[in-house]
Parts: sequence; structure tokens; C-alpha cells
Amino acid sequence: MDIRKLVAEALGTALLVFLSVGTATLCFGFGMTGKSAAAGVVATALSFGLVLLVLAYAIGPISGCHINPAVTIGFLVARRISITEAVGYWIAQIVGGIAGAALLRAMFAGAADYSTDKVGLGTDGWGDASMIGLNAGGAFLAEVVLTFMFVTVVLAVTRKASWPQLGGVAIGLSLTTVHLIGIPLTGTSVNPARSIGPALFVGGDSLSQLWLFIVAPLVGGAIAALVTMYFYPGEHVAPEVTADEAV
Amino acid sequence: MDIRKLVAEALGTALLVFLSVGTATLCFGFGMTGKSAAAGVVATALSFGLVLLVLAYAIGPISGCHINPAVTIGFLVARRISITEAVGYWIAQIVGGIAGAALLRAMFAGAADYSTDKVGLGTDGWGDASMIGLNAGGAFLAEVVLTFMFVTVVLAVTRKASWPQLGGVAIGLSLTTVHLIGIPLTGTSVNPARSIGPALFVGGDSLSQLWLFIVAPLVGGAIAALVTMYFYPGEHVAPEVTADEAV
Amino acid sequence: MDIRKLVAEALGTALLVFLSVGTATLCFGFGMTGKSAAAGVVATALSFGLVLLVLAYAIGPISGCHINPAVTIGFLVARRISITEAVGYWIAQIVGGIAGAALLRAMFAGAADYSTDKVGLGTDGWGDASMIGLNAGGAFLAEVVLTFMFVTVVLAVTRKASWPQLGGVAIGLSLTTVHLIGIPLTGTSVNPARSIGPALFVGGDSLSQLWLFIVAPLVGGAIAALVTMYFYPGEHVAPEVTADEAV
Amino acid sequence: MDIRKLVAEALGTALLVFLSVGTATLCFGFGMTGKSAAAGVVATALSFGLVLLVLAYAIGPISGCHINPAVTIGFLVARRISITEAVGYWIAQIVGGIAGAALLRAMFAGAADYSTDKVGLGTDGWGDASMIGLNAGGAFLAEVVLTFMFVTVVLAVTRKASWPQLGGVAIGLSLTTVHLIGIPLTGTSVNPARSIGPALFVGGDSLSQLWLFIVAPLVGGAIAALVTMYFYPGEHVAPEVTADEAV
Repeated sequence: MDIRKLVAEALGTALLVFLSVGTATLCFGFGMTGKSAAAGVVATALSFGLVLLVLAYAIGPISGCHINPAVTIGFLVARRISITEAVGYWIAQIVGGIAGAALLRAMFAGAADYSTDKVGLGTDGWGDASMIGLNAGGAFLAEVVLTFMFVTVVLAVTRKASWPQLGGVAIGLSLTTVHLIGIPLTGTSVNPARSIGPALFVGGDSLSQLWLFIVAPLVGGAIAALVTMYFYPGEHVAPEVTADEAV
Repeated sequence: MDIRKLVAEALGTALLVFLSVGTATLCFGFGMTGKSAAAGVVATALSFGLVLLVLAYAIGPISGCHINPAVTIGFLVARRISITEAVGYWIAQIVGGIAGAALLRAMFAGAADYSTDKVGLGTDGWGDASMIGLNAGGAFLAEVVLTFMFVTVVLAVTRKASWPQLGGVAIGLSLTTVHLIGIPLTGTSVNPARSIGPALFVGGDSLSQLWLFIVAPLVGGAIAALVTMYFYPGEHVAPEVTADEAV
Repeated sequence: MDIRKLVAEALGTALLVFLSVGTATLCFGFGMTGKSAAAGVVATALSFGLVLLVLAYAIGPISGCHINPAVTIGFLVARRISITEAVGYWIAQIVGGIAGAALLRAMFAGAADYSTDKVGLGTDGWGDASMIGLNAGGAFLAEVVLTFMFVTVVLAVTRKASWPQLGGVAIGLSLTTVHLIGIPLTGTSVNPARSIGPALFVGGDSLSQLWLFIVAPLVGGAIAALVTMYFYPGEHVAPEVTADEAV
Repeated sequence: MDIRKLVAEALGTALLVFLSVGTATLCFGFGMTGKSAAAGVVATALSFGLVLLVLAYAIGPISGCHINPAVTIGFLVARRISITEAVGYWIAQIVGGIAGAALLRAMFAGAADYSTDKVGLGTDGWGDASMIGLNAGGAFLAEVVLTFMFVTVVLAVTRKASWPQLGGVAIGLSLTTVHLIGIPLTGTSVNPARSIGPALFVGGDSLSQLWLFIVAPLVGGAIAALVTMYFYPGEHVAPEVTADEAV
């Protein structure tokens, strides 16, 4: 496996966390959203979606730009990458997410009156951490459905028969759509690596609730693989998978 | 008819209702829009448009991604699908819309203090249900014009002579434009399946006013077919329509 | 000249006025923008830009989708359409703009407490009609520069040597950029047909100030033609222009 | 070197400053953002990104549409332009940025109660000039990371092996993402030419802090070149570079 793939996954995840979790922190932690939460939702949803969109074009040719363990599990279930490569991607994504969160926290340390206690770091959560007080069951359902939506789009538009040019646009904007609804629900994970980094620095509930933002996205991503294999049979096995492996 | 087409139409409509009607409910039902309704309008209009945009790339190769009975009537009037297939699509879309609304309500049931009475479920309406108190006549006019706009774009950009790559972008963003004006008018239907699902769960006025959000979009979609046939004669009959059927 | 071209120009201009001037009226006339004018600016700027973007794909193959006399003067100065056709386009655009404004007013007549006196119809203006009290000189400068920006993009991306697929995206988003700055300045014309229709129904200052929103956009569009001819010499004369006409 | 390249760089930078710094000034200087800073962030971030996106299609074929010294240093480090050309570009960009700021100030002079003291001109800064009171260290880190992100996308999508059609979309939206987080931090430079023009007219702290918005973006742009050369070796030397120069 080309080491550049792992570097690209780590770098991409770090940039996603720095820019987009950073935008979320400014909007909701620093209170820039003010009297209209919807404005902060738009800013944050655009950030997550457009960062992914542009990175899909910038580093997609290197690693495919998963930068999300739930995307990687979708590719794995659809037999489009090997388990070895998937494990490498997962590690790189988690390392990148932690690095991005560390860099973000280092920058915010230069802000007047910043502390992770008061301002946070754009963590995900339910109950008191949800804008509408969504409970764990609702949060799990939300994360499964939203990740399913997102990974279905990713897998469908990266098929061989699809138009490669527009794939990154669809993938990025798909992430925007799940954030437009998901931010008031859970903050929106749909990406374990995006949740792990900030939770490690903030601790407390965001750490004890972290399991949900690992399990639910992986479940949603796996279901997405099954559905796209139903819709597009025969288009999912990667050419490098040998006949034996594909049995 | 390939059963996958009906599954795709049902799934797509369910996702549109879950994500976009969900975003509308959060903005306007839960009051996340706060002191600036325009911010909620932007969030909701982006959600409807971008969900359709990305699904056009994800499931468009399966069913064409109508996920809207008004689009299907446009294709029917333009002789681009058969009546048998259109009826199948309509049923799938309505079933999907109801399923999406049911799933959304199930999730919101996990929110603190949620009830369909207090918060609603993103239904369409006029009179007291319109942000500007638009009456039934104004609402009918609005839904006809907005659906006409939307379906005209759909039919024009899916002609054989068009560029297929950009079609989904134009279709999705067209839905955003009609929501930017339509949300304060009626909530914006332009899609009977999007209106039926939520209305069944909320009842009351949203159910008694439902007829308008079925009739007006179908009228608008049919007019759109006539106009695009005027602009692009000879490009609308689908190749699989036999000579007899096309007479 | 194909009559469908004129029908397309009139219909497109009517839809632009109905949808986008309608969105502006809701945001600023009906006060939906609330405590954050910026949210209304985003909603309105997205509407103008995205309506143009999608119409470029829907009716562009018929008429080129100018739907704006300032664009048409740009094409005329760049010798890409004949004076006969330009005059036809101008008439169709103005008729369409008036029809769109009439339809919009008819719909708003169904809203509680609507009157053109109180709520207006999204007209352009300066002085008291400008959010920042911009005077006539500032307004003229703004309209010239913004139209220059917009028409330069239109002319550059519709050259023969350009990529036709992305042209509509660039054109539409260019209109969004000029509205993001222009709404607080003058309301943003950059399109005489967009200004004439609403002004006729509202009267008063919007009618006495209308000359500026005719003259300044035409000046900006003509300068844009000169600049793009400088940048891209030899790419502007349309193939159907005979040698004599091109002298 | 074709003089039109320098004219294009100067004109493009002037338009970026006029439109996008103008939007920032209206949102934050004139207070149009009101009670929701996030709405102003969205408006301004869309303006910077979309102006660059559309100019990439309009003048990209002439000069490459750098309109930013940090982009030019990235091309220089990646050996994709010569030092002579880079110096020409830098001068043109700075001249254009000053001209755009001058034109913007001339227009705002026509606004009621405008003065650069009270309203400013969209300058960048830290400390009291940062919405969250970010100190110089945090501001430097932010500008390096954000410029790195932006220039990495620019260099990656303009490689020969990339799809040229979508390049402008990715580049423009990348600038939007860095503004979504950067505006509350420093105002967002990532472009020395964008910062120099306004600072010259406003003076004071914006002038004494200007060095950071020259140095940090150039550092970020240079790092971006090294990283993209690591990811895409052998794709960066321009064909017109002679063998000797490339050694």
C-alpha cells in the first residue's frame, strides 16, 4: 500500500476537523450564531460539505478521500477495498482527526477567554448536548439514517459507470444535507474520526457518549453498501480483488 | 418494469421527506430560525435542493429520480414514460413519503417536549398556516407557478440533447429556488408525495388543505410538459414508446 | 428569427422576476429578514443567481438565456448578435419583466394586509430606498461595476473556446456575487427588465429613479464587451455575421 | 510575457476586493449582520468563494486567475511559473487590490454617515480586531493553515492530470471554506493583496498588523507547494520550464 494514501487520509481528516469543527465551535461554542441558530447551521453545514467537496478533488486521486471510517466500511462491505487497506485508512483517519482537533485547540488557546469547558470544541452528543434534547434512541436512529444517506451517495457516484467529474460535488453536498438536519439533533457525526478527536480534548459527556458516534455511523455505512449493491449489482467489486477474494 | 425502480422512488422520496421536511420542522416548528425567518428559509431551501441534487446522481441511473408525482406527470404528458410506469411511480412515491414522515416522527418522539400538535411536522398550508397569511387562491397560483418552473427545468435538462452531467445540478438547484420564495407562502409543496406523508400524521388543517398540494403541483407539472414540448419538439417521446402509443 | 427565442426570453425574465423579486419582497418588504439583514441578502442573492443558473440550462439552448437587456447589449457590442435580434430580445425581456411583476402582485394580493405602498414589490432605488442611504452617484458607480462584473463573466464563458457545460454555473453564481454586495446598496438591478416591471406597479420614487437602473447596467454591459474583446480577440464575432456586417 | 496576463491579474484582484471586501464591509462595518454574526459570515464567505469561482472561468484562460500572491508563490515553489512572471503577477495583484479598495471607498463615500473610522473597509486584524480576540500567535497559525488548505486545493486541481472543467468550482468553494472559519478569527486574509489595499486606506492597527497578513499566507502557500509535490511528483514542472531551469 502506498504510504501517500495514509498521509492523504490523515491530512484530509485533520483539515476537515480543523476547518469544519472549527466553524461549528465558532457558531455554537462562541455564540456567533446569535439569535438565529439556523444561520449557524447553514454556515457549519456548508463548511463540512464544501471542505469534503474540495478535498475530493485535491486528494481524491491519491486515496479516494474517504477521510471517514464510515465511508471506508462502506467500501469494505462492498468489496471495493481490502481489509488490510481499510484498517490502515481507519488508523490514519483517527490519527488525523486527533491532530486536527489538537491544532484547533492550540489556535483557540490564543482567543480571549477560551476554555474547552466554556466554549467546547464542536463535540457531538445527545440529551443535554442536543439542541432539541434528543435522547439516545433518537440520536442513534438519526446517525444511522444520516450516515446511510451520505455513504449511499458516496458509493453510488464512485461506481465505475458513473461520471467521475461530478462525483465530488455530489459527495460534498450530500454531507451538507445531513448536517442541515443533524446539527440540531446531535451536532452530526456520521464520521467517527470527526467525533473522536474533539471528544478526547473535551472529555466528560462527549467522551462517555462517544460510542454512539462510532457504532451508529459504521452501521449506517454498512447498510449503505448493501443497498447500493442491490441497486448496482456487479459494479462494486474492485478490479484488484482476485476471484478468490470475491467469492 | 424493474422492481428496483419502484424501490428507488420510494427510498428517494423517504429520504427527501426525512432530511428536508425534518430540516423545515427544526427551523420553523422547533423555532431554530429565531429572529430571522430568512435564515431558516435558506437552510430549508438548501436542504430540499441539495438532497434532490445528490439523489439525482445516486439513484438517477436507476429510476430517473423523480421522487415527486408532479415530475412523473410531466414525463407522462411529454410521453416519456408509460401510464403503467407512472402509476407505479406514484404509488411508490406516496408510500415513500409516508414512510419518511413516519421515521421522522419516530425520531422526533425522542426529543424533549415534542408533539405534532406543538411542533408539527413541516406540513404545507395556507391562511393561518402561511407565514404571510396567503389565501387559497394565492396559494394555488404559487404552487402552480413554482411547480411549472421546477418541472420545466427537469424536463428540459433531461432531454437527450442536453448534457447529462450537469442535469442533476440544475434540477436540484431549481428546487432550491422555488423553496426560497415558497416557504413563506405555503411551506412549498410542488410535490404531492412530500405533502401527503406529513399531513397524515399531523391531521387537522394540513389534512383538509391537502387537496391543493396535490392538484396544483400536478397542474403545474402538466403545463411544464406542454411548454417544454413547444420549446423542444421531437425530443420528448421516449425511444421505448412504440409508434402506436405515440400517436 | 425563431419566435421561440422571444418566447423563451419573455418567459425566462418573467420567472426571474416572479421568483427572485418575490423572494426579495418577502425578505425585505414583509420583514422576514428580521434582525439580520445578511440572512435576507443570502436568500435573495441565492435566488437571483440560481434561477439564472437553472434557466441557462433549461432555455439556454433556445435563446441563450440573456433575460437581461444588459447582457444583450454586451452581445451586441461584441458583434455576437444582430441589432434586429437585440431589439427583439429587449422587447421580449421588458414584456416578460412586466408580466412577472404583474403575476407576483396578483399572488401577493392574496396575502393578509398586502399593499404595494406598505410592502412594495422589490424595487431598486437610492437615497432613502438604499439600506445604507447611498446617493445617486454611488448607486450609478455600483450598478456600472456590478453589471460589468456580471456581463464580463457571461461573455467570457460563452466564447466558443470555453467549456459549455460549466458556463451556466459560472453565469448564475456571478449574479449571486453581485447581489451579495448590491442588495444593501441599491437593491441590485444590473438588469433593466428586472427593474422596470416592479417599478411600474409601485410608482413613486422607484419610477422616478428608474432611469439609473436602465442606463447604468447598459453602460456596464457595453464596457464588459470591450474588455472581453480585449482579452479574447477574434473569438467574439458570431459565425452567422457576414463579412460585410463584421467590418 | 503577455501584458494581458498582468491586466487580468490586476482586474481580477480589483473585482475580488470591490465585491467581496465590499460585502464584508456591509455585513460587519455597516452592521447588516445584526444579531447573527453567522449570517454575515455566510454572505461574506460565499462572496469571496463565488467571485473567485466565476473569475476562474472568465479570466483563468488568460492568466490562470491567481489574483493572490500566496497562490503565485505556490506556483513558483512548484516550478510552474518563472520568477520573472511571479514578480509581475505580484505587482499586478497588489496594484489591483489597491485599485479595488480605492473604488470601493469612493462608492461608500456616497453612503450616509460613511467614514473609514466608523465603518472601516473590511480590513484583517487580530486582538481587538478579531471577533473572538485572537492573539497574534493564533492569527498566524490560522492564516498559515487556511492558506495551506486553499493553495493545496488550487495546486492539486490545476495539475495536468486533473479535470480542468471542475477546477474553478473546487478552487472557489475552497476559498469559501476558509472564510467560514476565518472571518471570526482574523477577518481572513489568505491573500496579501486582499489585505494591503484596504489597510492602506484605513491605516492604524490594520496597517501595523499588515505584515502578518503578508508573511503567513506566503508561508502557507509555500508549504502547500511542497505537499502537493509530495503527493503528485513529476506533475508540477511547467512544460515551458527549460531543462536547465528545472534542475
